[in-house]
Amino acid sequence: MDTTVNHERNINTIRLLAVDAVEAAQSGHPGLPLGVSPMAYVLWTRHMRFNPANPQWAGRDRFVLSAGHGSALLYSLLYLFGYPGMTLDQLKNFRQYGSLTPGHPEWHLTDGVEVTTGPLGQGIANAVGIALAERHLAATLNRDGAPVADFHTYVIVGDGDLMEGISSEASSLAGHLKLHRLIALYDDNHISIDGSTDLAFTEDVAARYRAYGWNVEEVGDGNDIEGIDAAITRCKSVTDRPSLIRVRTTIGYGSPHRAGTAEAHGTPLGPEETKLVKQRFGFDPDKSFVVYDDVREYFAGFTARGAELEKEYVAMLDEYRKNFPDIAPLYDQWVERRLPENWRDALPKFAVGDDMATRAASGKVLDAIVPKIPMMIGGSADLTPSNNTKFKGSEDLTPANYGGRYVRYGVREHGMGGVMNGMAVTGLIPYGGTFLCFSDYMRPAIRIAALSHYPTIFVFTHDSIGLGEDGPTHQPVEHYAALRAIPNLYFIRPADANETSFGWQIALENRDNPIAFALSRQKLPTLAGTDQGGALKGAYVLIDAEQPDIIIAATGSEVHVAVDAAKILVSHNVSPRIVSMPCWEIFEEQSEEYREEVFPFAVPVIGVEAGVEMGWQGYADGFVGMKRYGTSAPGEVAMDKFCFTAEHVADRAMGLLAEIVSFREVVQNRLESEMMEEMNDEQSAPDEA
Amino acid sequence: MDTTVNHERNINTIRLLAVDAVEAAQSGHPGLPLGVSPMAYVLWTRHMRFNPANPQWAGRDRFVLSAGHGSALLYSLLYLFGYPGMTLDQLKNFRQYGSLTPGHPEWHLTDGVEVTTGPLGQGIANAVGIALAERHLAATLNRDGAPVADFHTYVIVGDGDLMEGISSEASSLAGHLKLHRLIALYDDNHISIDGSTDLAFTEDVAARYRAYGWNVEEVGDGNDIEGIDAAITRCKSVTDRPSLIRVRTTIGYGSPHRAGTAEAHGTPLGPEETKLVKQRFGFDPDKSFVVYDDVREYFAGFTARGAELEKEYVAMLDEYRKNFPDIAPLYDQWVERRLPENWRDALPKFAVGDDMATRAASGKVLDAIVPKIPMMIGGSADLTPSNNTKFKGSEDLTPANYGGRYVRYGVREHGMGGVMNGMAVTGLIPYGGTFLCFSDYMRPAIRIAALSHYPTIFVFTHDSIGLGEDGPTHQPVEHYAALRAIPNLYFIRPADANETSFGWQIALENRDNPIAFALSRQKLPTLAGTDQGGALKGAYVLIDAEQPDIIIAATGSEVHVAVDAAKILVSHNVSPRIVSMPCWEIFEEQSEEYREEVFPFAVPVIGVEAGVEMGWQGYADGFVGMKRYGTSAPGEVAMDKFCFTAEHVADRAMGLLAEIVSFREVVQNRLESEMMEEMNDEQSAPDEA
Repeated sequence: MDTTVNHERNINTIRLLAVDAVEAAQSGHPGLPLGVSPMAYVLWTRHMRFNPANPQWAGRDRFVLSAGHGSALLYSLLYLFGYPGMTLDQLKNFRQYGSLTPGHPEWHLTDGVEVTTGPLGQGIANAVGIALAERHLAATLNRDGAPVADFHTYVIVGDGDLMEGISSEASSLAGHLKLHRLIALYDDNHISIDGSTDLAFTEDVAARYRAYGWNVEEVGDGNDIEGIDAAITRCKSVTDRPSLIRVRTTIGYGSPHRAGTAEAHGTPLGPEETKLVKQRFGFDPDKSFVVYDDVREYFAGFTARGAELEKEYVAMLDEYRKNFPDIAPLYDQWVERRLPENWRDALPKFAVGDDMATRAASGKVLDAIVPKIPMMIGGSADLTPSNNTKFKGSEDLTPANYGGRYVRYGVREHGMGGVMNGMAVTGLIPYGGTFLCFSDYMRPAIRIAALSHYPTIFVFTHDSIGLGEDGPTHQPVEHYAALRAIPNLYFIRPADANETSFGWQIALENRDNPIAFALSRQKLPTLAGTDQGGALKGAYVLIDAEQPDIIIAATGSEVHVAVDAAKILVSHNVSPRIVSMPCWEIFEEQSEEYREEVFPFAVPVIGVEAGVEMGWQGYADGFVGMKRYGTSAPGEVAMDKFCFTAEHVADRAMGLLAEIVSFREVVQNRLESEMMEEMNDEQSAPDEA
Repeated sequence: MDTTVNHERNINTIRLLAVDAVEAAQSGHPGLPLGVSPMAYVLWTRHMRFNPANPQWAGRDRFVLSAGHGSALLYSLLYLFGYPGMTLDQLKNFRQYGSLTPGHPEWHLTDGVEVTTGPLGQGIANAVGIALAERHLAATLNRDGAPVADFHTYVIVGDGDLMEGISSEASSLAGHLKLHRLIALYDDNHISIDGSTDLAFTEDVAARYRAYGWNVEEVGDGNDIEGIDAAITRCKSVTDRPSLIRVRTTIGYGSPHRAGTAEAHGTPLGPEETKLVKQRFGFDPDKSFVVYDDVREYFAGFTARGAELEKEYVAMLDEYRKNFPDIAPLYDQWVERRLPENWRDALPKFAVGDDMATRAASGKVLDAIVPKIPMMIGGSADLTPSNNTKFKGSEDLTPANYGGRYVRYGVREHGMGGVMNGMAVTGLIPYGGTFLCFSDYMRPAIRIAALSHYPTIFVFTHDSIGLGEDGPTHQPVEHYAALRAIPNLYFIRPADANETSFGWQIALENRDNPIAFALSRQKLPTLAGTDQGGALKGAYVLIDAEQPDIIIAATGSEVHVAVDAAKILVSHNVSPRIVSMPCWEIFEEQSEEYREEVFPFAVPVIGVEAGVEMGWQGYADGFVGMKRYGTSAPGEVAMDKFCFTAEHVADRAMGLLAEIVSFREVVQNRLESEMMEEMNDEQSAPDEA
């Protein structure tokens, strides 16, 4: 340890850059940076392996600021260490339009931000996912003398993170999986927005984490950098458990009037208090964004250190490529986020007559493709036999077998979502299952994936009242709309086995967006024409008529009902077109020409889907759907009671046509009489023209 | 204890009724009833105070089957104890259309079901809410010698419940609040759907619950009814902590081939195995739904016991009314779920010029009304100063002051949702706040409230990109659509302070539905005309024109933008109507006449809302909204960048009008040429007529 370094000044520089950024924005959270900077400093300067010049270096340790409202701390660090793009101007433009320094860190926006955080508890769940990915990648890719995928995952969590259920779920899983390279630093400041944590949070956090199977260390003073250093060192030596270091801190440390108060949390200190803090830290109270030369120099030293670390890694990698030519291509697939060549050849096609639930079809697709795509890693929130997520020959990922490619998440949907997101940013391709109804349990994780463009794949089965007897508590009706409402998320509801196969093609080829599948519990016929790849355009004409009178548009298990309705319509001399719409988001990306081709302007459309109407008004003139919750009854009874039958759909289609004909007549009559009037006007008042 | 009673046969009768129900349905979960019947039997026969003839008796103990998939157990109990409507036919119609015995228990459907369960973790959170309500009601209503609101809350939980984050949140809160009348029985059967709980759930549950501040008891054998009895008795004597009794059970107990396996969980045993179970229990293997006379008689005895219990209670209540005439009316308000007379007089009105955020207006409304409505109980998930949920003069509800009417939920949104639902079924009127974006965290609880018609009030603030700098992680864009998609939920987004006041009127007068408010962080002008009560119809004409050319429909913070756009339009000789739509669900309940009056058929509509378009297609021909996530920037900058300005709205309105004029011309031209053709046809081919 270099004793000539002025650690205090270095730490206070981090603190004050954050304070100044918040002041400049007149918005933000000064309390966390003031309290937490010492632990962040120790972590980054003495333990974390990183190269500021290359934030994507595969060998780096990962840092997650789960308490994402402390973003100014992270941006200060990124600035001082010299991360690309993180200029002083960015700090000065904290929380401003177009900056790289938004209110909460965003993965897709800012180099050095490992995951998007802010919504509490997500970050620690992501960190569990990153640490799990590390164990799996290490087991898969490391070779003797070449630990190419060894790294630590560090996460700073606050009280809010630890109160959230998602962190309980993910932490319990991390303990179960013995993720020893995960080290959490707990900013135990005894303050939340409402005031003292005594108001609501008096549990024994350390005992809880021990109950999860974690190693727990305690540091009594958040400014005790040697104590923090020693605790981190001890945690790094633990090889069978993740670690939590409880560090007793003071929120807003250094602020004479705000330290230790809830007010310090999310309100700028204001100019007067800011001056006092600067004086307290021996800085010029009238200057902002100050970095003394020795401080600048100290942090600049990490540029060389980082380059050196990466150089060593690259040298090791060169040896690795030479010595282990078999495994090196897989390493490249990981780092370059590439799929293996020709993987698509493995996608199965299904013949008419191969009737099966789309969840079963999905299972067959996974059996075929996951063995070909080593970066895929499956799992389910304790619904494996229902979700059909476990591919043939897969082994469970366990502490004894981190190379396993199937994760038993337990009944922890939200935790699963957060963990999958963490794996996704690490370069794996995670997919995980639960019932569609329980997508609600993990919705905040789905949203973060969508906002951040994580390529996480959510496999939701039991996708409608067609699931039957489990009843309305388990029958999704609003979930199609609710998921389609999420920007950037691709929601795929395949009509049959072939559309399911193409659905997986969409899922794997869109690495910039999360995917949500809605798959049927019940058996569905494999339809003629679904094997032609129309699904890849999101929506397509499945059955056409020369001059269609009406279009029936449907998704999932209602497509075959529409196909049967078409037969009835034909017998009534009505010419229907059937459009299958497995993925609206993809369809909406197609050319206007194609979309107009599928839905010509003048042809009326009736939508059929076992969900609420919301969203369909954009496509359809009439709708057969759900207006209320479902019912506990055998699936076919439920479908029948709620009128998802060929007869009803055909009736409604003919009803709509009749309405439209009469509507046309009304318009025509009105226009005719207007023309008459105009002609009369012209005839009766020619002089006035 | 009556030693002549054949407890084993009684218990096996419960077990086999459940097994037979599952067999009849060929669907359901036999494993739980087989394992858990002994503890349920001990609980109901030796501890629980209830009167089968009056499931609504206020003095009853509450029972929650958090592991709701074990519904057949609950229905067997309700049948044997003689609850209204629960006939043998209902058991035979388990999981069938129209029965009172759906796959998972539904509160609004079946007498004796205290809460809707099935989605895991909800039940235990509800139980915490019921137990919290009990403490609060006891503190408020009980008087010397008249404990009118004293009861225990018992809940049976499974592994799945305890893995869910919501149960962690609620249990931590229960420990914090020292809810000693809450006793949870943990069906510790070591099996989940995927197999052994060793696959995913190896934490030390007892240690975790002790860390939450719970008393934990252990019973080594799930068939040891005396051991269970003694443990419950011990728990009832604990007066400073909730209790968890960990009972080691065997899933599918008694089934020779399925006991202790995951297969027992959710698959009917099948006829052969069912016979073997019956033989094992000494029942005739060829008979179903058997209740021996002694068994029937034993359970029938609880009718008299229940009547006696209620009689004692009523006698006490009579004394109470006599001795404490001041408090008795409040008791009636509780039991009858009535609001006090004239409470509406307290609702404030706001004058034009009273500009304020709708969250601030909501705070003022709460200041005015909550003191008048003693059954209201507020709270926030650690965002009290942001949600404006703490009404003037309110005291925190704490173990030292259960009479307090403000709950500090901590950063536990999902737990808060579940706890509020529990309080709502108990007859309180709970409201609780968080940011709208974090409604996602509690969505499963919102859904259960909607499905079950719980009158829970969700107060969501910071309702759009207008919240500003916190950025896209905190800015809802899809949430309006996602919440409107939930059947039975009333989503209210008021335009200003007056609409907020009417919003609370809607919230309190609709006790059959949950309510979700979306309130602005930013200040909004109080508009002319919003004080007339139009909001009570869900949507109304705020500004009219004699002959409107176009309607601008908007909600919340976009209404004043629409009002300003109207001025611009008028200056361009366009006559706009402004429709404010604070609650679509209420509007859709209005007469067709009224709805047509607000949106006349022939007038084009442009919608304006800072959310995704989904749903608006049903009202609007054009839309100014969000197509992507927001941005971290000051609120007014964000609103401006995303075009929520009067100028842009006016432009879009004029653009829409121009499109419609040209569209009309197209239609007119087409019809004219058709008429010409027809005339030509008639002229050229008169002979063929």
